Amino acid sequence: MQPFVLDDRLARDSESILKLGLCDLRLARDSRWPWLILVPQRPDVSEIFDLTPLDQALLTFEQVTVGTALKKMTGADKINIAAIGNIVRQLHVHVVARSENDPNWPGPIWGFGQSVPYEEKAFEAMKHRILEAFQ
Amino acid sequence: MQPFVLDDRLARDSESILKLGLCDLRLARDSRWPWLILVPQRPDVSEIFDLTPLDQALLTFEQVTVGTALKKMTGADKINIAAIGNIVRQLHVHVVARSENDPNWPGPIWGFGQSVPYEEKAFEAMKHRILEAFQ
Repeated sequence: MQPFVLDDRLARDSESILKLGLCDLRLARDSRWPWLILVPQRPDVSEIFDLTPLDQALLTFEQVTVGTALKKMTGADKINIAAIGNIVRQLHVHVVARSENDPNWPGPIWGFGQSVPYEEKAFEAMKHRILEAFQ
Repeated sequence: MQPFVLDDRLARDSESILKLGLCDLRLARDSRWPWLILVPQRPDVSEIFDLTPLDQALLTFEQVTVGTALKKMTGADKINIAAIGNIVRQLHVHVVARSENDPNWPGPIWGFGQSVPYEEKAFEAMKHRILEAFQ
């Protein structure tokens, strides 16, 4: 079996902050929203239904864990969870904290405007706040 | 416990085509994309993590069942699965068949343009093709 290799664009646009049982949990390099990405570490998977039933259940558990932590940390009005993948076909699930005064609210974040990179300290601070919210 | 009552906007913008174990499966009244919506029939639920763990597993199973059927029926390039809910807060999951020549590809469908209603015969035909794909 081929090993799992992270897609180049996911590698460029996000940074790994935690390895879960199934997924690599990544923080998007875009400061406009608290934006996490779950990437199941399985080769050749594009759709949720390409995963085995056990991996589907694990992905659900990890989405719920991450969504709950992000809600707790941010107090967001709504958590958006989406597997889109029209551009990057490697299966990845967005988990995004949305608030009523954020860019493009209540529209979706995907395809909207240009990313605004974090300053390094702000990225590290966001990362640590998220990891603390898991505890 | 309060009974489940479907949100008014979901009722207006989509039509029930099948009741699954957890969800009301609805077809959006927008002919631009084959667009299904799963609504868990539980009161006062806004986020996936508001569901019980058993209901979360059921929702995953139903998403996979519906996504697989939609892929089989349409031959779509990508199935988009998303729980957004910034406008309608009642938990609902979009399952949409996307193709490389469809409106706003590869951008998201949410918040894009105006809906294009089906003619009645075309709606019934789409509904029957979807239901057949479950078999």
